[in-house]
Amino acid sequence: YIERLELQLEMLEKGGYEHFMLKEIYEQPRSIRDCMRGRIYPQQGKVQLGGIKEYTEKLKNVDRIIIVACGTSWHAGLVGEYLIEEYARVPVEVEYASEFRYRNPIITEKDLVIAISQSGETADTMAAIELAKEKGATIFGICNVVGASIPRTTHAGVYTHAGPEIGVASTKAFTAQVSVLTLIAFYIAQQRGTITQSKLIEYLTELNEIPELVERALKANDHIKDIAAKFKDTNNCLFLGRGSSFPVALEGALKLKEISYIHAEGYPAAEMKHGPIALIDDAMPVVVIATKHSSYEKVISNIQEVKARGGHIIAIVTEGDTEVKSMADYVIEIPQTAEPFVPLLATVPLQLLAYHTAVMRGCNVDQPRNLAKSVTVE
Amino acid sequence: YIERLELQLEMLEKGGYEHFMLKEIYEQPRSIRDCMRGRIYPQQGKVQLGGIKEYTEKLKNVDRIIIVACGTSWHAGLVGEYLIEEYARVPVEVEYASEFRYRNPIITEKDLVIAISQSGETADTMAAIELAKEKGATIFGICNVVGASIPRTTHAGVYTHAGPEIGVASTKAFTAQVSVLTLIAFYIAQQRGTITQSKLIEYLTELNEIPELVERALKANDHIKDIAAKFKDTNNCLFLGRGSSFPVALEGALKLKEISYIHAEGYPAAEMKHGPIALIDDAMPVVVIATKHSSYEKVISNIQEVKARGGHIIAIVTEGDTEVKSMADYVIEIPQTAEPFVPLLATVPLQLLAYHTAVMRGCNVDQPRNLAKSVTVE
Repeated sequence: YIERLELQLEMLEKGGYEHFMLKEIYEQPRSIRDCMRGRIYPQQGKVQLGGIKEYTEKLKNVDRIIIVACGTSWHAGLVGEYLIEEYARVPVEVEYASEFRYRNPIITEKDLVIAISQSGETADTMAAIELAKEKGATIFGICNVVGASIPRTTHAGVYTHAGPEIGVASTKAFTAQVSVLTLIAFYIAQQRGTITQSKLIEYLTELNEIPELVERALKANDHIKDIAAKFKDTNNCLFLGRGSSFPVALEGALKLKEISYIHAEGYPAAEMKHGPIALIDDAMPVVVIATKHSSYEKVISNIQEVKARGGHIIAIVTEGDTEVKSMADYVIEIPQTAEPFVPLLATVPLQLLAYHTAVMRGCNVDQPRNLAKSVTVE
Repeated sequence: YIERLELQLEMLEKGGYEHFMLKEIYEQPRSIRDCMRGRIYPQQGKVQLGGIKEYTEKLKNVDRIIIVACGTSWHAGLVGEYLIEEYARVPVEVEYASEFRYRNPIITEKDLVIAISQSGETADTMAAIELAKEKGATIFGICNVVGASIPRTTHAGVYTHAGPEIGVASTKAFTAQVSVLTLIAFYIAQQRGTITQSKLIEYLTELNEIPELVERALKANDHIKDIAAKFKDTNNCLFLGRGSSFPVALEGALKLKEISYIHAEGYPAAEMKHGPIALIDDAMPVVVIATKHSSYEKVISNIQEVKARGGHIIAIVTEGDTEVKSMADYVIEIPQTAEPFVPLLATVPLQLLAYHTAVMRGCNVDQPRNLAKSVTVE
């Protein structure tokens, strides 16, 4: 009887979805909105981050930012690197927290360290923070769980406000982390004057629309399910992207690894020809992020290279794209958006692809084998 | 008749080895020696690099070094990052040349860029150099082919002197690149005073022994062949390492990818628990670099995690190791050496492992499918 009650309770918690992961994927329009609430003022071209406000002077003069994280959060960090370097023009290094700690890292009081962790309890990240603190660096945290160990240890920080995440494979926490890093990039850019006010107004107006665009990207769900059905029996998969879509490719591959146990690997698209292209045959599907942005033409030639070698292409494209469509085996459309926000949209179909593939393979999506939700051992 | 002559010629060129790749693996004691000749003076504790001598003042004051490269050279760059940061205490960023170019990178006249390319003709690397040059940075080249485009474009540089490399999968060029980066790290360290003279004498004396130690590492060849026979039918493989052994793991995985078409992937050992560990079962062998250096105990716990989940371990260990031996399915010994030189030794068994696996799978080792020796297109 208690068991039945518990089951009913779990069903209620899942809000009608078959798994927590699917529920959390679908929550993203709301979680990204919550993450931005009170933080962006598009009409005034203003970003406001109360949690780091008192460090504004520091941010104006910072020479180097070091991001430390693990797993999915590390991928968010790579997106952050791209955005901060591109818009705020501050050099960023992204380090695996576990490696950072054992490396006698070069770090001084001038440096800013940003630690990213959904749970706020990741042991490797915590250890990296302690080391950076000893060396006198300023530490910001980007965490989801309010009051966890990391936000209590850092000097300042920005919560992601994604709400509790139950699925072990992170989805809404990732897009919330990317949202926060986007806000931080624009905040620093504004303080340092590396972005014009009119450009900032344009970008913030666009950013404000992202929750709706994510909603629209989710509409591809049935189509993605069909594609998953075609590829569910594959043992291997490559994910390719360029620029800020490279970490999205890494994250897409990690999702597939974590929940479907398919050996998926992410690569910067142009690196493929320096080795991994030897792997391409009809048993190695290739997922490519090929939206209409700065590297579009280059990515198209990567797609041609894969096709010439008998590979199958699943491409994430911009709505209305015809060029990639004529070459790829399958395309999944996402709405048109400005370049800095592509990661927030392109991630969504990859989450759904991993989800449906894993379900069809009979895997325990919410509790994949060997994995814990938050890794509190080093 | 001409065909027979050509065949005989090729046999001669292979110097009795079945493939160029094997010949080049075995040439490494000599190629590393050639690379260091006239450049190190162990008894005086002196590194001399004629090609970059006139930039000594620049090196004394450099704030940041950016390494650009592709494929195997990019892995050498990651080893270089570790060595330069550790011993010369200069922050280093390693960038994929193909990504660097399209990223509007933050780079100024103060920066030093080191471009690595065996052929000296890699198009992506060439393009990255041109961009960095436009921005006023100082550019060093690390190339093997004398007089190629890259050494002609850079301000200064250090040749690897590995001799012609015919096998498409780079072996001796990689260890020569790592040797040069090791010399550069110590050279900068000496100029900046971040290493004591006595430590430098100790390290250079050890470095001077490396060719002989590589010779000894090659003696494991038959044992490695036996291991390859056990695993040749696997479709997937993970390579793990920490610190400077992480790029070695990446390089070991790339070799296996390139010539045996096995989907191998390298990971920092401690990141495994943040996702990839879900892949571990008895069909996913795991190659671990577990030499007796700073992360030894940590790597042992990574090995235990893999074993607890039914994975098979092939471990690269220090001669005489007993602890890893008691846990791993197979161990391959390499001679004891000081920490900075582990990459030069640990790479060798991984090259042999890839080589024998590919031969047993009937692959064209010297000319793997889809790959060119030097990638002169972007």
